[in-house]
Amino acid sequence: MADYVAPVRDIRFALDLVGLDDLFKYPAFAHVDAGSVDDLLTEYGRFSAEVFAPINRGGDKEHSVVLPGTAEVRTPTGFRDAYQQYVSAGWGSVPFDPAHGGGGFPWLVAIAMQEMLTSSNMAFSLCPLLTQGAIEALSHHGSEELQEIYLRKMVSGEWTGTMNLTEPQAGSDVGALTSKALPAADGTWRVFGQKIYITYGEHDMADNIVHLVLARIPDAPAGTKGISLFIVPKFLVNADGSLGARNDAKVVSLEHKMGINASPTCVMAYGDDGDGAVGFMVGEPNTGMRSMFTMMNNARLSVGLEGLAIAERAYQDAVQYALERVQGRPVGGAVGDAIVGHPDVRRTLLYMRSHIEAMRGLTFMNAKALDMSRHHPDADERAHALELADLLVPLSKAWCTDLGVELTSMAVQIFGGMGFVEETGVAQHYRDARIAPIYEGTNGIQALDLIGRKLPMRGGAVVLDLLDDIEATDARLGAAVGEVRRATTWILGHAAAPIESMAGATPYLRALATTVGGWMLARQAQAAVGDDAYSAAKRSTATFYFDNILPTVSGLCAQAMAGSHALMSVPAEALRSQ
Amino acid sequence: MADYVAPVRDIRFALDLVGLDDLFKYPAFAHVDAGSVDDLLTEYGRFSAEVFAPINRGGDKEHSVVLPGTAEVRTPTGFRDAYQQYVSAGWGSVPFDPAHGGGGFPWLVAIAMQEMLTSSNMAFSLCPLLTQGAIEALSHHGSEELQEIYLRKMVSGEWTGTMNLTEPQAGSDVGALTSKALPAADGTWRVFGQKIYITYGEHDMADNIVHLVLARIPDAPAGTKGISLFIVPKFLVNADGSLGARNDAKVVSLEHKMGINASPTCVMAYGDDGDGAVGFMVGEPNTGMRSMFTMMNNARLSVGLEGLAIAERAYQDAVQYALERVQGRPVGGAVGDAIVGHPDVRRTLLYMRSHIEAMRGLTFMNAKALDMSRHHPDADERAHALELADLLVPLSKAWCTDLGVELTSMAVQIFGGMGFVEETGVAQHYRDARIAPIYEGTNGIQALDLIGRKLPMRGGAVVLDLLDDIEATDARLGAAVGEVRRATTWILGHAAAPIESMAGATPYLRALATTVGGWMLARQAQAAVGDDAYSAAKRSTATFYFDNILPTVSGLCAQAMAGSHALMSVPAEALRSQ
Repeated sequence: MADYVAPVRDIRFALDLVGLDDLFKYPAFAHVDAGSVDDLLTEYGRFSAEVFAPINRGGDKEHSVVLPGTAEVRTPTGFRDAYQQYVSAGWGSVPFDPAHGGGGFPWLVAIAMQEMLTSSNMAFSLCPLLTQGAIEALSHHGSEELQEIYLRKMVSGEWTGTMNLTEPQAGSDVGALTSKALPAADGTWRVFGQKIYITYGEHDMADNIVHLVLARIPDAPAGTKGISLFIVPKFLVNADGSLGARNDAKVVSLEHKMGINASPTCVMAYGDDGDGAVGFMVGEPNTGMRSMFTMMNNARLSVGLEGLAIAERAYQDAVQYALERVQGRPVGGAVGDAIVGHPDVRRTLLYMRSHIEAMRGLTFMNAKALDMSRHHPDADERAHALELADLLVPLSKAWCTDLGVELTSMAVQIFGGMGFVEETGVAQHYRDARIAPIYEGTNGIQALDLIGRKLPMRGGAVVLDLLDDIEATDARLGAAVGEVRRATTWILGHAAAPIESMAGATPYLRALATTVGGWMLARQAQAAVGDDAYSAAKRSTATFYFDNILPTVSGLCAQAMAGSHALMSVPAEALRSQ
Repeated sequence: MADYVAPVRDIRFALDLVGLDDLFKYPAFAHVDAGSVDDLLTEYGRFSAEVFAPINRGGDKEHSVVLPGTAEVRTPTGFRDAYQQYVSAGWGSVPFDPAHGGGGFPWLVAIAMQEMLTSSNMAFSLCPLLTQGAIEALSHHGSEELQEIYLRKMVSGEWTGTMNLTEPQAGSDVGALTSKALPAADGTWRVFGQKIYITYGEHDMADNIVHLVLARIPDAPAGTKGISLFIVPKFLVNADGSLGARNDAKVVSLEHKMGINASPTCVMAYGDDGDGAVGFMVGEPNTGMRSMFTMMNNARLSVGLEGLAIAERAYQDAVQYALERVQGRPVGGAVGDAIVGHPDVRRTLLYMRSHIEAMRGLTFMNAKALDMSRHHPDADERAHALELADLLVPLSKAWCTDLGVELTSMAVQIFGGMGFVEETGVAQHYRDARIAPIYEGTNGIQALDLIGRKLPMRGGAVVLDLLDDIEATDARLGAAVGEVRRATTWILGHAAAPIESMAGATPYLRALATTVGGWMLARQAQAAVGDDAYSAAKRSTATFYFDNILPTVSGLCAQAMAGSHALMSVPAEALRSQ
């Protein structure tokens, strides 16, 4: 396996492409400039390559484990030390509010950093990622008192955070959850229930773990409208800020998974000892789902980014292998030429590379829109930016994570037999990548979100305006835009019979994302005007995408408009093999 | 995970679709009839479900292992016993020459049986599969004496077989192998060398293992023209047929793989003790590659079948889960309805199901063409059938194994979080499936075989005639056929600049296979004329494929004709991330 090299130049290129500099004009980012971003990326790229990447393969082999007879989790060798270095350097604080000890950098910069962290060690990256989500929920909805006690320690990374939504019967259908919280005399709550799939629900890398838990209070309305959000710390916090009693929030077991094995995926029990875990309500009663929605855009974008990041890592491995491995004389080549000379290998690499660059463009554009939606001085601009961000989020999440699976699979294929053997490490990327289309809203749910919530925004004008912008950028995008516009209009026209458009939601999402990806590459080609090899490669990559990937949009749009008849006319039981 | 249910009715339907009965008219199959095939399929389906399927998950967890300090491999619990039952029942002998103790059934029937074996336990299936390849090589090229000693025991399954081609520097490029064989005074040979990726190279399920080993004799020509084929038995065989001395053919280690963990993938050392492993030449000197080519069609078809089989298994799991799991109210449904009511879930299942039925049609048609090519009484018909079989083999191998990966991934997705957790077993199918696009000629090599060797047959007439047949079957296939015909003509027209068509070989293969798959479904729809639910489902599945899958052919053909410029104009080193 190739050593991970943080693609700082490629990332910088993509930041310029989406106009990072625009953000520096906002008062919120007055203290940030291009130079400080460059330094940050270079340093964090080095840190990721030197600290996180070397423990990735060992983490996969070793797994996190529950120490027998305890409720303690031991993370793999090196994880605790790497996390301590991460905390000491203050990396986790970069994008957060300076009022809580953060660096106040744009989310776009945090996303660029996250790419490097995730590429270097996806399983490790989930701990900071979940902490980030908890910070956000607390920043937006926590009382000043809760913020005072918890936020600074979480921004610094000294304490980590978790998100507790899922229960066995309540996955995609969060409203079905049954964990409960009872009021205590002192204004705190006692939380009872079992949660599953809790990432880093227990571990040994930090002194305290701040669980954010969804539960129902007595007499709460049914479904999502009756869910409240609580903080349940692993250790209660004394008035002086020191750690107090161990709370009744315990890991029951870890899932045995296909990938991200270093990341402890916990079954958590709250209040199992009888009196309930001590919890503190975040926000108002029964507004827990709304609080979750606040952080959904960031969380989904970050998971989408995982697809990009793991694909980038696998791509680096594949390129390195293709440049070294000799096997057969390439047509027009010489004996001893490496397999990168074979057109089919080169096609695979270009397929990967062009999609990686398109994904980077998309996710970075999405992150910038989020920054604009929060910090642009003009309210109308903020509102417009939020619409764009909302539209792009399901594309970032679903398209990039599906591609994460496809592209890591291609990397395995480049390695041939060595790809199926675990020693090379490329198989790990493939296994790790598979979770991302599932969590944080399955990709099917993203597609339904896109057609059900996002397309109807402003009567369809948000998506149709975007398509106009795309079409105006490069004539080569015209055919794809035409197809997508037709499918979009068809979907908007079937609002009264949603089952028709729901049947084609997934291919529609892919069609739109593929087109938006082409837009990013068209802008890339326009930006890469130099005579140098770097610029030429950027242009060729875009050309490959125009010639090979954009033509798939037409078939996807046909599927988007195929309707539900062939699907629903087969009785469910008749689907069984006989 | 659902219990495996052998889809005997679906398999029988597909056998009828490709016209199994035609074969009964040939003298070679005079003793076979529909009733005996029905009985065989029913019994073997039951056997697969009851004997092979229950040890599949345990085999994945337990792995095959080298016993410390020995050159012995212990297979997982139950494997030896299941294999003994398989041998006792005589299942392995069904398609082989009655002269060697076989049942003399059509290969098509063997392929149908193989589907069930592989669905029930892919890792187990590889032992009979490799034995089958060794039987075939020996039947065609071995001397009468070698056949006398080895064949009957291999046909019965008492002894198993292996194929030893790959060396670290010689994978896809078999001609680069360096194992050597020196003549001994008694007419036998002494074989030296190390081989990798030897499936069931050592195990405890049978009394003897017959290794077929490719090696070079002194003064052999370079490359593939200087390779000879040898039998190297694990135990030498005495004149009376009893087992004699242990030969110097030893397992060095097992690969640690992503999947098919129960199948021991061996590094084998021949002649490591100094004097060489005793070998017996099969066929003439320097004709080893030609002997390999004899069995290539069967081997590649069988690996293609693995894609179908593992997809069928994963599909059964996915349907079962979708029928049981409740999560959110489906549109137009009721609270408590299972997720199969969600259009996106239904689409995923129809995507899987339609491709599975298309794959079954393709692989069975391919198997029948092989039977015809060997046993049709008319020489011209045999020749035509061989052309068709040759054309279809790369489609069966590459398309079905790529789909095996895609469809098992969809099954994981249906399971949501439970799909990523190993306990459900669906993750195993996904990991197992990933090897099939790699071995027995990577799918990239299949695509090159298709455009470089198969399309040019009879100046392109073989493929163009097939396209005419497809077009004549159903008007709904016309558009796809038109696109593929254009791409085919384009490729045939670029024979002088092969790099142009090689650049698009992979999407071309998929376009052609997708169209042939549509043909099989069109014939299925024409055959399923009944008013019953079974026939209706077969027709709806075909309609889904026409509406959703055939429209992708156009985008694939655009890629097939995109040429090499965008690929090759980027200098290889510029592909690196920076």
